[in-house]
Amino acid sequence: MAGSSGRLEVEVVSIGDELLIGQTVNTNAAWMGRALEAEGWHVGRCQVIPDTREAILEALRGAEARAELVLLTGGLGPTRDDITKHVLCEHNGTELVRHPDIEDRIVAWFGRRGREVLQVNRDQALLPASCTALDNPLGTASGMWFDREGGVTVSMPGVPYEMEHIMIHGVIPGMRNRLAKAGRQPEREHRSILTMGTGESQLAARIEDLETRWAGEGIKLAYLPSPGSVRLRLTAEGAATAGLDVARGDLVDRLTEWVVSEEGRTVEQELAHLMTSQGWTFAVAESCTGGGLGAALVAAPGASAYFLGGVQAYANSAKVELLGVSEGDLAAHGAVSEPVARAMAEGARSRLGADFGVGITGIAGPDGGTAEKPVGTVFIACAGPEGTRCVGHRFGRDRARNLGMTIRSACALALDEGRSLRADAASASQGVADSH
Amino acid sequence: MAGSSGRLEVEVVSIGDELLIGQTVNTNAAWMGRALEAEGWHVGRCQVIPDTREAILEALRGAEARAELVLLTGGLGPTRDDITKHVLCEHNGTELVRHPDIEDRIVAWFGRRGREVLQVNRDQALLPASCTALDNPLGTASGMWFDREGGVTVSMPGVPYEMEHIMIHGVIPGMRNRLAKAGRQPEREHRSILTMGTGESQLAARIEDLETRWAGEGIKLAYLPSPGSVRLRLTAEGAATAGLDVARGDLVDRLTEWVVSEEGRTVEQELAHLMTSQGWTFAVAESCTGGGLGAALVAAPGASAYFLGGVQAYANSAKVELLGVSEGDLAAHGAVSEPVARAMAEGARSRLGADFGVGITGIAGPDGGTAEKPVGTVFIACAGPEGTRCVGHRFGRDRARNLGMTIRSACALALDEGRSLRADAASASQGVADSH
Repeated sequence: MAGSSGRLEVEVVSIGDELLIGQTVNTNAAWMGRALEAEGWHVGRCQVIPDTREAILEALRGAEARAELVLLTGGLGPTRDDITKHVLCEHNGTELVRHPDIEDRIVAWFGRRGREVLQVNRDQALLPASCTALDNPLGTASGMWFDREGGVTVSMPGVPYEMEHIMIHGVIPGMRNRLAKAGRQPEREHRSILTMGTGESQLAARIEDLETRWAGEGIKLAYLPSPGSVRLRLTAEGAATAGLDVARGDLVDRLTEWVVSEEGRTVEQELAHLMTSQGWTFAVAESCTGGGLGAALVAAPGASAYFLGGVQAYANSAKVELLGVSEGDLAAHGAVSEPVARAMAEGARSRLGADFGVGITGIAGPDGGTAEKPVGTVFIACAGPEGTRCVGHRFGRDRARNLGMTIRSACALALDEGRSLRADAASASQGVADSH
Repeated sequence: MAGSSGRLEVEVVSIGDELLIGQTVNTNAAWMGRALEAEGWHVGRCQVIPDTREAILEALRGAEARAELVLLTGGLGPTRDDITKHVLCEHNGTELVRHPDIEDRIVAWFGRRGREVLQVNRDQALLPASCTALDNPLGTASGMWFDREGGVTVSMPGVPYEMEHIMIHGVIPGMRNRLAKAGRQPEREHRSILTMGTGESQLAARIEDLETRWAGEGIKLAYLPSPGSVRLRLTAEGAATAGLDVARGDLVDRLTEWVVSEEGRTVEQELAHLMTSQGWTFAVAESCTGGGLGAALVAAPGASAYFLGGVQAYANSAKVELLGVSEGDLAAHGAVSEPVARAMAEGARSRLGADFGVGITGIAGPDGGTAEKPVGTVFIACAGPEGTRCVGHRFGRDRARNLGMTIRSACALALDEGRSLRADAASASQGVADSH
């Protein structure tokens, strides 16, 4: 509750019909969840509501009664359908006043972009008199910080990067100050590991006794399944956090053949880390994924340290011309086959001059399957300094899921091959050392 | 409210700490929003709550008081942290009973996958006595349909494709039946168009008088901005829906230079539609996006009708070897430059043998910028039968946003070039027809 001690309770209220009808996915709530969690603060509830006066007032009243910090996003644009600011005035018994400094900033913002500034844009400098404005250099709607009985309510624009900027530079530092003054510290921690290759019930059976022991130590375990992987998250509060690292070690030992990351990294992040730390280079040859593996790798900064590029060999002609796949293999085995996946991986490795090359060919669906090769059939090969390994998969019927599982499985295969090579190199150098 | 006439009011309750702390993005709520909207049903609120007994009970009571249909997702896995089923028993004053037919199905499910079936898996055949089970062939947790005073509550697993299957095959047909029996029909419709190239305030200024007129006709306009584009959505209910097509026509006429899609399609969908309908082929050469443009195109089924593939030319060596970019241009202008983007587009077009080739080179950030070419500098070229056109962009500082805007801008450029060619071809054939 909205008290002055204990952990900070937070509620998130996202305003917008576009979220309710699913035209926009609520990535803001997920981003805020991660950022608040990192501070040790506790998100007790997220709501998505329509942009009507009644819904906003009801959500504000409920959330402010339960949580010390209430974060509103959305409904602050310059257009008529954005009413949050007016409802906040009504709720707080205040009225809009013009901030000349903010108006100057808005005019300058449009000037830099060579765009005309309209009256509706200037009116974004009208803010409720009782709030403190939070600077938004990335847009024209300011954040609004309201101090209230027992807590704080902040309203922010719904544009993700604007919200993120206001959170990082306004809300989080402001709340840290508030908590520091009251001598209150974050007190909740997580550890998580990523597994691939089995389901949550198999994992649970393997660690049943550990779960029982952790329950007695105040450590909670959660299973977070995604297509193709299960993340296991350990959580503890207060003094119990001291046991988290030992608990994670026990978990990794017990599940070792399925553990992809001990640090809670994604499989893409583990692959990038391995390639970069070993100084190896990486190339791809993608058919059904059309470039999705490369895109997943370059989503993280620093990919140029190991990723050289590849070939999107969607049509068969591209497989032949750009990767050297043989017409004979295509005719004899079909494009979705082990020989073609191997030739693609080896073609990527040789044509890009990389240490490792991955080849992907499959039937993503919903059409194109046969009795022998149903939708979801995917071959992934990895060519490296010690040879080429190919794995066949039968995923499901859903195209998006098949593409996502293919990309993650390709990373897992390359990670496995890379770790084997590293282990061989380590034991070889150990052998040399021993022989001295 | 939970009445027996008027539109169906729905609330969504997503259960799971992983959503609150942002380890998982709530794509389920967006999917459900789209599916319910398509039925003409009205989502009044979405909530995300922790998997505790108190939170689930409070959310159920609130949602059931307000909405005729309450959809719960999550907390139905076989492991200890999943408590939804037990809380539903308490809430409905019932107890778990074993369904032998469902247990047989679970055993068969594990058998097909060659995996051992554990007691916790068998126990997923324990369901509250008062519910009707909804079949889930994609997993082991059944959906649960509870008829209650004034409405229906359904609990589903949180795994997206399992939830989607249960919605499509259980929940939606069941609710259609219920409404049909009561003579109640969906009554809400949307039209939407997609614009690129200007901001929402500029759009609003251009159509101010239309908005005023529509308000009098019961037609509501919403602005849904994304990085690089603004979707405009018209909504009407009941008799006012008859005016939606005329309103959309007026909107398109007024905003014509910025309209990318009149049908509410994404720019990727418009490009796919144009290429397929004209029988043209398409190839890509991607540097900073690493394959993201190709991945965006193959995300939709049917891409093989026009997409041949391309080259992920992340390293400069790949630009030279696989696309024929000249070392001289790279040295003289740098990899991020108009000449290199043009050579990449032309290389993609010629090496893949496509009608159109797009080349992308840029600095996605956060590092790698210079005073002359700051982070966010991107050159996109499109090579086609009538020549090559290149556009330079200066996006922002955020890597993910820059990559997304680059992909959409590349689609928009290719769409523009393709539409020009189609228009030229049409006027040429008109010229021939006229001369007869």
